[in-house]
Order: sequence, then C-alpha cells, then structure tokens
Amino acid sequence: MSIEERIAQDLIRIRETKPLIHHITNYVVMNDTANVTLHIGALPVMAHAREEVEEMTSAAGALVLNIGTLTDYWIESMVLAGRKANELGIPVVLDPVGAGATNLRTSSAMRILNEVRVTVIRGNQGEIGALSGISGYVKGVESTGALKEPLQIAEMLSRRIKATVAITGKRDIITNSMKSLGVDNGDPLLRTITGTGCMATTMIAAFCAVEEDPVIAAAGGLACFGIAAEMAAEVARGPATFKTALFDFIYSLTPEDVERRARIVEL
Amino acid sequence: MSIEERIAQDLIRIRETKPLIHHITNYVVMNDTANVTLHIGALPVMAHAREEVEEMTSAAGALVLNIGTLTDYWIESMVLAGRKANELGIPVVLDPVGAGATNLRTSSAMRILNEVRVTVIRGNQGEIGALSGISGYVKGVESTGALKEPLQIAEMLSRRIKATVAITGKRDIITNSMKSLGVDNGDPLLRTITGTGCMATTMIAAFCAVEEDPVIAAAGGLACFGIAAEMAAEVARGPATFKTALFDFIYSLTPEDVERRARIVEL
Amino acid sequence: MSIEERIAQDLIRIRETKPLIHHITNYVVMNDTANVTLHIGALPVMAHAREEVEEMTSAAGALVLNIGTLTDYWIESMVLAGRKANELGIPVVLDPVGAGATNLRTSSAMRILNEVRVTVIRGNQGEIGALSGISGYVKGVESTGALKEPLQIAEMLSRRIKATVAITGKRDIITNSMKSLGVDNGDPLLRTITGTGCMATTMIAAFCAVEEDPVIAAAGGLACFGIAAEMAAEVARGPATFKTALFDFIYSLTPEDVERRARIVEL
Repeated sequence: MSIEERIAQDLIRIRETKPLIHHITNYVVMNDTANVTLHIGALPVMAHAREEVEEMTSAAGALVLNIGTLTDYWIESMVLAGRKANELGIPVVLDPVGAGATNLRTSSAMRILNEVRVTVIRGNQGEIGALSGISGYVKGVESTGALKEPLQIAEMLSRRIKATVAITGKRDIITNSMKSLGVDNGDPLLRTITGTGCMATTMIAAFCAVEEDPVIAAAGGLACFGIAAEMAAEVARGPATFKTALFDFIYSLTPEDVERRARIVEL
Repeated sequence: MSIEERIAQDLIRIRETKPLIHHITNYVVMNDTANVTLHIGALPVMAHAREEVEEMTSAAGALVLNIGTLTDYWIESMVLAGRKANELGIPVVLDPVGAGATNLRTSSAMRILNEVRVTVIRGNQGEIGALSGISGYVKGVESTGALKEPLQIAEMLSRRIKATVAITGKRDIITNSMKSLGVDNGDPLLRTITGTGCMATTMIAAFCAVEEDPVIAAAGGLACFGIAAEMAAEVARGPATFKTALFDFIYSLTPEDVERRARIVEL
Repeated sequence: MSIEERIAQDLIRIRETKPLIHHITNYVVMNDTANVTLHIGALPVMAHAREEVEEMTSAAGALVLNIGTLTDYWIESMVLAGRKANELGIPVVLDPVGAGATNLRTSSAMRILNEVRVTVIRGNQGEIGALSGISGYVKGVESTGALKEPLQIAEMLSRRIKATVAITGKRDIITNSMKSLGVDNGDPLLRTITGTGCMATTMIAAFCAVEEDPVIAAAGGLACFGIAAEMAAEVARGPATFKTALFDFIYSLTPEDVERRARIVEL
C-alpha cells in the first residue's frame, strides 16, 4: 500500500470512528480548530481546567497542546493532560506557537517537551529553529526567514526529543530522524489568514488518533489540509472566502481526492 | 393566537426593544453567539469578571450561563450573576456543555442549578441525561446516543429543578412538566459546525427577554434557529457556507417566515 | 501631499514593513482582529501573560489595549505592556469597550489612561462620553444615543488625556484638540456584526505603526475600514456575507481605492 493509499484509509477511519480530539489551545483559534476537527470527521473538545483535563484526555483519541495564548495555569494543565495521555498511550501533538518570540514561550515549550512524551511537534521554521537553539527567525508568531538546513535541524530535534518533527512551509518537512517525508500540497493564501498553523496541528492530531506511525499521520494531516487549500484557492476571492472554502473542502474531501492529489516525497 | 403567531410577535418585540443579553460563556463560541444575538435583533455583551457581572446582569433582558470552557472562577461569576438575575426577575438560561463528560462539568452544572433559579436549561440528550442521573451518552461535548424516553426524562428533570427543560436534537423537546412542545425545524448540517447548541441557547435567551412563558420562548428560539438552518441548507456548499448563510438568514428572518415555516407540535 | 495621498502611502508602508501589532484584547474578537491585521498587511500577535507582555511589546510596531472581556489580571498586563511601549516610543491604541456600562470598565479605562500615555483612544459615543463624565449612553458595549456635541467632548477629552481621540459612528470624529478630522466612509451593515469597533481599533494601530501623526493614522485606519465596508455592502446578502466580503476587501484594498474613495473632511 502506498503512503497515499494509507492516508486515504486513515481518512476513512477518522470518519468511521470519530475520535475525540482534546484541545488545550489558544483563544484565537478555538472556534476554527473545533470546526476543522468536525469537518475532517473527528469530534473536538476544548477543556483546560486543572480539575478536568486528565479525565477529558482519558476519553480522547489524541491530545493537542498549543501554547498560542499561554499563561502558567494553562501550561500546568497541558502538562497534567500530557502526562495522563502518556500513561494511557494517547498521542500528543504539540504546537509551540511563538517559541523564540519570548522567553516564556520558548521555556514553556521546552518544559512540555521535558515533562511530556510528545508524539508529533509541528511548528514553522522560526519556532522549530528556536527550539533547536537557532534564534532570530521569529516575529511574534510568524516565521521571518528560511532555515538553511531545515531537514537536518528537524532530524536533530527529533533525535533529541524522541518525537516526530513537522516543519510547515512551502514544502512541509516531516521526520522521525530515521524516515523523512516532504509534503508539497498547500497554497500561499494559507498565509493570509490567522491560525492555519494551528489548524494543521489539529489535522495531524486527527490522523494520529487512527494511525500508529506518527510520520504517516503528520503527512496525512498536512496533505489533506494542503489539498483542501488548493481546492479552496481556485474559488476564493480573498482570504475570507478562501477560509470558508477551505473549511467546506476539508469536509467534502474524499479518499479519492487524497490518493489523486497528495504530493508526498521521501527525503 | 396560535403559538406560531405568538412567536412571530415575540420576534418583532426582540427587534423593537433590543434587549441586552448578558453572556457568561465559553471561549469557543463567544464570537458566534454575539453575532447570533445581534442578528436576531438583540444586543450581546460578554462579561465575566466577578467585579462587574452583577452590575452587567442588572442591565440585561436575559442572562446566558454556558459552562463550555469552565473554571472555578467562571462558575463563581455565573452564580453571582445568576443570583442577581433571580433577585431582579431576569430570566436565566443555562447551557450545561459537556455535563456527563467530566465530574467538574456535571457538578458545576448541578451547583448552578442548586444556587440559581434557572428559567430554561438547554442541552443535548447526553447532557440532559447526565443531569438526570443517566450516564453514558456523552463524548466530549457531543451526545452519542438516543435516550430511550427523552420526554419523560425532561419532565422529571423539569419537576426537580423547577425549570423549563429543552433537549435539542432531530426533534427538539421542550417541557415545564405540565406542558410540552416538540420543534421539528432544523437541518443535519447543524451537526457539522461547532457551537450550534450554544447558538440555540442564545436564541432562547433572546426570546426569554420578551416572552414570559419559558416554554414558548424556548420553542420560539429553537424554531427560528431551525428555520434559518433550513433556509441556509438550501444554499450551502458545505459547513462553512452553511454557517455564513445561517447567520444571514437569522438576520433576515421575518415574522411571516416564522408563521409559515415553524413546525411546532404539542406533545 | 493631500491627506488621502498620505494615507495611501501609509498603506503601502504597512504592506512593505509588516509591523507586528501586539494585541491584549478580548476573547470575542481575537480571531477577527488577528485576521484584519493580516489582511491590511501587518502581523498580529495576541499575548497577555505578565511574564511576556513587555518582551512581546518590545518587538511590536504598535500595541492595542482592548478591555472588552477584562479582569484585573488582563488590566495589569495592559499596564505593564503600555509602560514598556511608552519607554520605547511604541504607539499605544486603547479601546475602552463598554466604558460606562460597569464601574469596572470605566475605572479600568481610567486607570490605563492614568498609567500609560495613550496615542489614540477609539470608542463609540457612549464610551467616549462616559470617559468624559457624560453618562447614560451605553447599553452593554453598544452606544445608545447621540452625544449633543461630540467634537467638543472629544476635544475636551483629548486635552485632558493628551491623546488623539476617535469617536466612531456615522461620521467618525478624530481630534488631537488642535486639529480635527471627520471620516464619512462606512456602511450601516457594520452595526450588524460584533467586533467592528475592535476591528477599527486594530486598523488604527496598523497605521500608527507607520505614521507619526496619530490624527492621520486614525483617519487612515478608519477610512480604509470604511471603504472596505462600502465595497462589501455592495455584494453582501446579510451580515455574515458582509463580514466575509469586508475581510476580502481589506486584503485587496489598493492605494488607488484609498485616494479615490476616502471621504475625509477637516472639522
């Protein structure tokens, strides 16, 4: 079975099993990522109270930790939920939003990586660079430049944190340090709306809930997201009509679309 | 005057009097429920600080308490606002999001019901079941199965908490234990976007601000919401275009639409 | 160079320099204002943790303080960020959402004005009235009446707080007490969606990041926002399609659109 066929099967499994995706995420994207979760076929829940995060995670197929509007309270909840997920073998996907932009963001992402076994970490070049000790590529929560050797940096970070690393950009790079994939789907309009990185993370989490190989899961989530973006770009009249169409196409994406349009390469 | 005519009159009254609907609600839906409030003709305000909730509620035509992303701080604010509403005779609508999914959610909903006289409680079958002592129908914040005797359960809960109970689903069920209505408006696309339960709760609150019979108010809010959903489904190309059209049609809904399209039955 | 030409140049500068706009704002509009920031050509970041706000502000071209869903924690963060912005000469734009509706909101806005040098304050008539000691024009976060002499009130407040004051409404009024402008762009549909005041504030902040005269910056932000609203109204079928089109047109707005369509008058 090719990677594309396997991803198409994973998409079917998400829709059949409707895994719960527990998000502890930022205020900016909660509505969008809940919708993306529903549209790809899974069920979203947002819960961050310390008293309930472990119980909620226990019912989940995957856990998303996203530090976009962090405070200490939220990071504490992320660690509690992440440890419970580890205990129960539930995949954890980390989005280190703005790592490199402030010490709090970098150190909070580091703390989560130290205290929780993360399955996949997804960030832009600036964020992954910052967590790899390479600074200067972040402006707020945006990446401002291109890392010189993104694959090597991703592999290095992957070895250090024992997780799959996904760097999203024009070509998405995914590696577990042994096996590496590139995903070439997507559209420049993704950069014109807020939260597309967070949405991509949610897509990866939905795939992690049904796919045991995190490299395939990350490629699946990113390819499906990118394919829907390509379809949406054809009908968009600007960023907001693009976003509306992106959500519609995530919902209507078929396994055949995935097999035909996924552009995944081994690196 | 038929129920449909009365609801049509209530819609006119909302638009004429523009009642303030004070929401203490979850992060995921704040933007959507504020927009729904405006579109139906009322004015939204979101305020949760303990120092201001009583003052804000005092100016409101109805109060929405929604526990979708609760913490103790927020529940405390809900109780403060709810008691002030009770003192002033302002209707209170409770949305027990995710009751049954975690102990915190179930016990927080119970606490509010114990400390505040609620006018209407609206939930899905899983949530209302959980508050009635019937567990096992909740996955995150979604209902996962059908209660066997939803009307009897709603009536029983209504008697216990002395409030109107609304269970939304394919047929919405509304009861004050003496009088019961079913609302058959709606569309399956409502399940493809996040927050439609919360939006329905907001619609009920807008009607409660102008209609003294909570059963009629709940039927009015749910019928109008369902009619707009039916209109939206005709033009939607997927969940996001459906949501956009839903909001447009809530805004343009006329009393004539309500009289002609409401499908309300006595149970 | 006319005011319109200067604003058109400012728009070009926003898109060339992509200033970071640090928002400490309310939950309801975070997603919308982040998108508006991107669409006009700047970069948004939302960060409110006390441990990081000063560091984040230091990287910003402008700081937005918006009290729409305030608590003491958030106000404290706003003061910290605001003082850092003052220290570094970074413009600060204040949106006193709901001032006049509760004592907490009025006193929090006052506290910020006392402890931070604000560059521009933008509010509706009710909010600016309340901060000028004229009460009774606020219902929740909406203005409910017309101030009798808005320009004089704005001038008086401007002198007192040594900031540019912008009152938005059918005619937007902007003054630094020496020079006053009116902006007549806009559309009534802006009142049918939530957060348009907050979006206008964000637009002003983007212009403040590139334009040293705050009166021109406020006129630029409000004219561009109003022009996009006029374009959107032509294609809207209701509030939600209006909002989608508004965002698309903010993105596609050209310097030529600004020069041709801005309706700015000296008062």
